[in-house]
Amino acid sequence: LSLPIRYDDWPDDLKSLQRAVYYADALFETIRVSGGRLCWWPYHWERLTAGLLALGYELPAPWTADFFEREILKIAPSDARVRLTVWRSPGGLYYPDCNTPLYVIEAKPLPQLVALPPPRLTICTSVRLPMDAFSNFKTLNAARYVAAAREARTRGYDDGLLLNSAGRVCEATSSNLMWWQGDTLCTPALSEGCVAGVMRRVVLEKARATGIPVLETTCTPEQLAAAEAMFLTNAIRGMVPVGALDGRVLVPGE
Amino acid sequence: LSLPIRYDDWPDDLKSLQRAVYYADALFETIRVSGGRLCWWPYHWERLTAGLLALGYELPAPWTADFFEREILKIAPSDARVRLTVWRSPGGLYYPDCNTPLYVIEAKPLPQLVALPPPRLTICTSVRLPMDAFSNFKTLNAARYVAAAREARTRGYDDGLLLNSAGRVCEATSSNLMWWQGDTLCTPALSEGCVAGVMRRVVLEKARATGIPVLETTCTPEQLAAAEAMFLTNAIRGMVPVGALDGRVLVPGE
Repeated sequence: LSLPIRYDDWPDDLKSLQRAVYYADALFETIRVSGGRLCWWPYHWERLTAGLLALGYELPAPWTADFFEREILKIAPSDARVRLTVWRSPGGLYYPDCNTPLYVIEAKPLPQLVALPPPRLTICTSVRLPMDAFSNFKTLNAARYVAAAREARTRGYDDGLLLNSAGRVCEATSSNLMWWQGDTLCTPALSEGCVAGVMRRVVLEKARATGIPVLETTCTPEQLAAAEAMFLTNAIRGMVPVGALDGRVLVPGE
Repeated sequence: LSLPIRYDDWPDDLKSLQRAVYYADALFETIRVSGGRLCWWPYHWERLTAGLLALGYELPAPWTADFFEREILKIAPSDARVRLTVWRSPGGLYYPDCNTPLYVIEAKPLPQLVALPPPRLTICTSVRLPMDAFSNFKTLNAARYVAAAREARTRGYDDGLLLNSAGRVCEATSSNLMWWQGDTLCTPALSEGCVAGVMRRVVLEKARATGIPVLETTCTPEQLAAAEAMFLTNAIRGMVPVGALDGRVLVPGE
């Protein structure tokens, strides 16, 4: 890695990343491409543009849902995991000099996910998530998810659930959490500080459309410990049953 | 700005920034250099290495306080504002493939700060800060400070105070907050979620050493509204009296 240690020696293309590297002043979307089509793209686009507006970015005229759909499909294989990252142009300290966004697209072949066993989760204790309107966007402020992923793996689990500042269950490191309470489908409310996940929205809308009662609620670790069935949702993997929570088996493995 | 929009086309030096740009998996220090010497460098180094340990970075053998002091002084003018940014090598999703850190140093001539009038502050309502051990480190997760800086400026103030998830006063966008309560010097406790500021530490240590009572405490917006004198601390500007809070004048301006 040949990166100059002196910032002034960075080439201009590196410097254009300044506000992402300095302040995580950026948003991203992780999008599934299946059979050459973007899945749930209108929902991703809606969340991304809502985030850009909230962060005070200007939206350049060419930036439409159609434009990015075309750009992504130029790059992505027909079945892909795509990451679209958007950050603010360089300049300023916390207060930005300029609100023009820049972007990059990364596309990787979709991993073989079906064969993975149901994940064994633990409730992470090393970090707590904030709770505000910002929490619902996919900003780059992910150091706590990195810490939770490390804590879970170090302790022998596949993934971790994060608590919010109030000590209630919020989400997994890269998925929303849902569980059944009788015949009601439950998930932490957006006000609990979770990401407004695209698959969360898809699942809740489908449940409501088919008459399944839905409850966006709060959940203490003790309440979750009593749940009989739970699953994770994200835009890449869809709905994934939780195999075990802190050693309590929910879906027997092989 | 000539940045390729396709991540695979990024040169290797850009890709080495991946975990900073993707996850804000990084820490930084902002250091004052005066008369060719680093100010409070042992405190910066102590905080940085504590953060690296907490985030699970390996500390390469050459990375000592003396090494970075030399590297910084090679680059910095004799009076400078220096930013040292450290991030994790590329690879992995939230769970990292590798824990080797990379770094960059930026040095700028120290701005003329003395002439600035006492800042007029407001309490920001658009974001809330998290409250955990992570909050005390200077991670790249600064999008909320950017939002608060924008909110304050948009509303006609110089800077903003941020509340934590419990709705209590935490810190300014790039400074700690202190105030007098009788003859006691007060500041939000580290458990309130503020950055463990180097100048905060310096001021509290000097106060204690000279017999001034110090209280690390909690503070509601209502309690702060009753304070007669308050100031901001950071490593670049030192101690700065607050000129006004939400229109209530504390230090008459010109």
